Amino acid sequence: MTAPAPTIEFVPSYVRDAWWRPADDVAGTEVRDAATGEPVARVSTDGLDVAAAVEHARTVGQRSLGDLSLHERALRLKELAVYLNEHKGELYDLSHRTGATDRDNLIDVDGGIGTLFTFSSKGRRELPNSQVLIDGAVESLSRDGSFIGEHIYTRLPGVAVQINAFNFPVWGMLEKFAPAFIAGVPTLVKPATPTGYVTAACVRLMVESGLLPAGSLQLISGSARDLLDHLDHRDLVAFTGSAGTAASLKAHPQVADGGVRFSSETDSLNAAILAPDAVPGTPEFEAFIGSVVTEVTSKAGQKCTAIRRTIVPATIVDDVVEALRTALSAVVVGDPRTAGTTMGALASVGQREEVTRSVRRLEAAGGQVRIGGAPDGDGDDAFFPPTVITFADPDTEQAHSVEAFGPVTSVLGYTDVDDAVRLAALGQGSLVATVCTNDPDTATRLITGIAAHHGRVLILNRQDAKTSTGHGSPVPHLVHGGPGRAGGGEELGGIRAVKHHMQRTAVQGSPGMLTAVTGVWHTGAAVRSVGRAEVDAGTGEHPFRKSLATLRIGDQFASELRTVHLQDILDFAETTGDKFYAHTDEAAAAANPFFPRRVAHGYLLVSWAAGLFVDAAPGPVLANYGLENLRFITPVTYDDAIRVTLTCKQITPRVTDEYGEVRWDAVIHNQRDEVVATYDVLTLVAKQR
Amino acid sequence: MTAPAPTIEFVPSYVRDAWWRPADDVAGTEVRDAATGEPVARVSTDGLDVAAAVEHARTVGQRSLGDLSLHERALRLKELAVYLNEHKGELYDLSHRTGATDRDNLIDVDGGIGTLFTFSSKGRRELPNSQVLIDGAVESLSRDGSFIGEHIYTRLPGVAVQINAFNFPVWGMLEKFAPAFIAGVPTLVKPATPTGYVTAACVRLMVESGLLPAGSLQLISGSARDLLDHLDHRDLVAFTGSAGTAASLKAHPQVADGGVRFSSETDSLNAAILAPDAVPGTPEFEAFIGSVVTEVTSKAGQKCTAIRRTIVPATIVDDVVEALRTALSAVVVGDPRTAGTTMGALASVGQREEVTRSVRRLEAAGGQVRIGGAPDGDGDDAFFPPTVITFADPDTEQAHSVEAFGPVTSVLGYTDVDDAVRLAALGQGSLVATVCTNDPDTATRLITGIAAHHGRVLILNRQDAKTSTGHGSPVPHLVHGGPGRAGGGEELGGIRAVKHHMQRTAVQGSPGMLTAVTGVWHTGAAVRSVGRAEVDAGTGEHPFRKSLATLRIGDQFASELRTVHLQDILDFAETTGDKFYAHTDEAAAAANPFFPRRVAHGYLLVSWAAGLFVDAAPGPVLANYGLENLRFITPVTYDDAIRVTLTCKQITPRVTDEYGEVRWDAVIHNQRDEVVATYDVLTLVAKQR
Repeated sequence: MTAPAPTIEFVPSYVRDAWWRPADDVAGTEVRDAATGEPVARVSTDGLDVAAAVEHARTVGQRSLGDLSLHERALRLKELAVYLNEHKGELYDLSHRTGATDRDNLIDVDGGIGTLFTFSSKGRRELPNSQVLIDGAVESLSRDGSFIGEHIYTRLPGVAVQINAFNFPVWGMLEKFAPAFIAGVPTLVKPATPTGYVTAACVRLMVESGLLPAGSLQLISGSARDLLDHLDHRDLVAFTGSAGTAASLKAHPQVADGGVRFSSETDSLNAAILAPDAVPGTPEFEAFIGSVVTEVTSKAGQKCTAIRRTIVPATIVDDVVEALRTALSAVVVGDPRTAGTTMGALASVGQREEVTRSVRRLEAAGGQVRIGGAPDGDGDDAFFPPTVITFADPDTEQAHSVEAFGPVTSVLGYTDVDDAVRLAALGQGSLVATVCTNDPDTATRLITGIAAHHGRVLILNRQDAKTSTGHGSPVPHLVHGGPGRAGGGEELGGIRAVKHHMQRTAVQGSPGMLTAVTGVWHTGAAVRSVGRAEVDAGTGEHPFRKSLATLRIGDQFASELRTVHLQDILDFAETTGDKFYAHTDEAAAAANPFFPRRVAHGYLLVSWAAGLFVDAAPGPVLANYGLENLRFITPVTYDDAIRVTLTCKQITPRVTDEYGEVRWDAVIHNQRDEVVATYDVLTLVAKQR
Repeated sequence: MTAPAPTIEFVPSYVRDAWWRPADDVAGTEVRDAATGEPVARVSTDGLDVAAAVEHARTVGQRSLGDLSLHERALRLKELAVYLNEHKGELYDLSHRTGATDRDNLIDVDGGIGTLFTFSSKGRRELPNSQVLIDGAVESLSRDGSFIGEHIYTRLPGVAVQINAFNFPVWGMLEKFAPAFIAGVPTLVKPATPTGYVTAACVRLMVESGLLPAGSLQLISGSARDLLDHLDHRDLVAFTGSAGTAASLKAHPQVADGGVRFSSETDSLNAAILAPDAVPGTPEFEAFIGSVVTEVTSKAGQKCTAIRRTIVPATIVDDVVEALRTALSAVVVGDPRTAGTTMGALASVGQREEVTRSVRRLEAAGGQVRIGGAPDGDGDDAFFPPTVITFADPDTEQAHSVEAFGPVTSVLGYTDVDDAVRLAALGQGSLVATVCTNDPDTATRLITGIAAHHGRVLILNRQDAKTSTGHGSPVPHLVHGGPGRAGGGEELGGIRAVKHHMQRTAVQGSPGMLTAVTGVWHTGAAVRSVGRAEVDAGTGEHPFRKSLATLRIGDQFASELRTVHLQDILDFAETTGDKFYAHTDEAAAAANPFFPRRVAHGYLLVSWAAGLFVDAAPGPVLANYGLENLRFITPVTYDDAIRVTLTCKQITPRVTDEYGEVRWDAVIHNQRDEVVATYDVLTLVAKQR
């Protein structure tokens, strides 16, 4: 800690819905421009009341997020994304000082904003508009149906703490913030010191947007101090950084024994495997070299997902090195603000020194620097050239364990596909691997061999080389994280990430009670049933006549019986063209193991059922947009009769439309009250008549 | 460690597919009968090569399990269950020596066998018969469909280590073994010393059955010694026991930093909450008292799920104590081998002393023993009476943190429902809670208030009082585990538990590559397509003519176009009775936001599609048993035409039947090649013609 010039401003923290800065006489840590070495800001949390911030999240933050429905929170994310998109130029300018080029900012700034958009969309499309999520199927736990069980997710009652790495000051925050926000869990961000001023600028924009519910986002700029002391089993910590720091956080009493939920995304020596078929001259070889070059140079290699191990057939190691040399020769390393620069600086002089040490370790272990190498001197800038290292012995332990967190990759030769799988596994768990092949069998062998050691795998070939989102780019739809050395955590993955911020709980009880708790009707729970006669007589209202204003789960329509005659089946076969023998050939039908004689088409049954339950006149039910989980249980033969019961099961009002989705439980019975078929009917229903 | 009489045999270990015992001159730890104090066995692992056992599992065990398909492994579990069921008398007899009554054995022995049956059934019904499981939906990652992503599960390449508690020597092993076995991960069991001889007897039966693949199950009877030193990120440890031991295991370098997957199920002060409506005289009050008595006496209260905190309205604490006194007065504590005994002994004299210490701590904190209490004296038996304690101050910290692991419960009074929620949360995370109420609103308030603090909640009322599986009984269908003090782990939960033994990996690539890796056809992957003309001309085979012997994913039938006339729609409305205005009233249809004018019924479209794709004559396709994920995308109006494409998507041969399930991807297009509808058709297809 050096005493900075007093003119350099502190990066503010944002706690308890207000900006906070240390007293002027606090020294703080100085942060410098990666390309020029000029001081940028000071950082300190001396005097900050961390406990109060945690308490604020658990009280004010939980309350204000809980006041919004899940879809409202998801929509808010989209509005935040739109606001940030309009103001992202400010973040670009600031990020240049961290060594990031505009291409790098596409990953960090635009990538972060894109994550908000994706989560907003997924939250509203894939989740119910409620506070309780159901996980999986109902389990029958008693013969008579009076006792059932299922799983629900409810939000954690605490705070989601992020402890982030320096390389993605914007994306690193937003990718963790988005799912927590949808789940309804307030976030407390602690960015890394070297680039935390960019995170603070992003938080400032989010605050200025006026879109953040009180207490839903707080920022600690500087040391987290005693933060973990104040956390318990209600809270979670998502850490990104070194395995060493992760281990020390895991050893904290509140994590080891106090129930704090801890996930980490740490070191990873990601592999890219060039399969035997992808020889020089193939589109796959070209795509492979392009991918390695991108991963070496993008963010100056400061990505936890970068390719550290380039695993290729031993016979063509030199061809690969030469192809990399040709491609890397076009890279222009320089100040991101200078025109023509294609690769920026590392984030700090400290990082330059750290990467230099790692390269020296690899060299000491037998690595031969073939391209680039650690720069001489000890200037104020943090530039480092693209560097490629080879090893005579591909099993060299350091090649699989020393992560040079910069523009550095090792090229390792394998003997056959099994050997490539074995080498990839020496990474002891990684975030991502690329497998480059155009042979489906080789892809299958490689992927099934390495999958259990990886959080993500990418198969690169001529089909997807142009459209692939790339080895190094986590996408919000898919999980980011990996086993073992990679930290063992999972982030992103669409709705999976929302659920990471919730507790899964098994609930057991009667159908009525599970209906009350979940807001979703369960078979066996109370209904308000009307039949055709009551509807026709005007003594009962058909549920299709109810808008979302009056429709309630448990509202039911129960039809009369309708007899299926042989001629109906034959006519249906004729008009639809479905003359499958089970409907048309008495002897052949009887010989089938499942049918007594000719039976009605399943499609006849569901078509007739619609005729039995429909309410024909215009009304709030706008359309039947689908059908799910249809199962035919008991065959219906001629002279049997069917009736249908349709019960309102789930109502999901859309937050941006004048209608919502209503799911109906449909059951077809026969004249013996046996269940013929079960399914869900999906409709769109107007909010108002 | 005392020097035992030389006549007492060692409990054997089972490693590397052979029985192992220490040398005769090893002293070992002596285990005594819980009721009589007689020596039962000696236990020691002195001289056991633990590293070789781990390596055996990773090599031989992984290979032999990998040679079986998932359904074959599931079926093997059923066969094991049948064998154990035939021989369970031996386990009953032995278990009496641990203090367990026959009612207790129903939970431990029969409960364990039942878990095998349930997992066997679920594995075959709910999982594909393959080695790669797909998790969730396909994610579109490029506009042109050439790059997509999804998640797969593959088995962990290591060993599943169990470190178990003394209270369930059979169930404790089998409930962890079953899902690991289905996943294809070998198990290494380390039971608790006091009752490990029962576990060893169960392992002996399993070995004798001849059903265990080589290396799939190993047993370490005695100290685990340096076991954790030999584990890494390929392996997982599932621990059941005290929070203190869990914390020390978590601190092991291979867990803290080496990537070993660790889950624990530890202390838990489970609550049962009597709601305000469940006053004395109601069926709920009666059920509540019955439940508390069961949990106090079953296994002599030595269940991690037992009710430790009986939370009732403050005004009726005394009524509850008196009702418990009446019910508990019928309990007969004694030797399980003595007729009339309804509650056995604790597992050991050590446990009796431990529970005594806990009760003294509760008394010292202000607890008043109202029923029972710690026994005087220091005999050789481990009996302890049912004990009920009250607290003047329900917030007393020890009432929520000191787990007296025996027949002991504290009765605590609350002021209102919010206060009950607050008290339950003071447990800082529990395995299970019962909420006893007949009021849906109260149930909802209590459950949503406490769910995030619990792994399981049970709603007890007059509907399910008779059929409930009970507060203290984990069921294999639902997760067992809980946040915070309960250890933060999850076991059971049906297929969720199988997935706990697998790695989730995001896979990105072209549709063809994802098809190859998963064995499931993806939209955009290669097809072998035939049309009606080729089938009729005999130049192409309809995929419905292929049995599972020749049918392959990607086999496709593509129909001709068929025009929908207005009269077809009107006829369909007439015959089905579905005269919804969108099909019958031109003006009203046009006024609907989704339709241009009168449109065809969705049911007409899927019925016609069946007519377009069907192959009518008897053949290997036996039945259409269902339909999934039907979505209507583009409306079809009269004079439009439709065609359908049916592609073999997934084949699941049944291991016990002469047929299997075939899932077909169905897409209906219109004459402009717009997608009209998408769905999956589910059929049963014979294995041979």
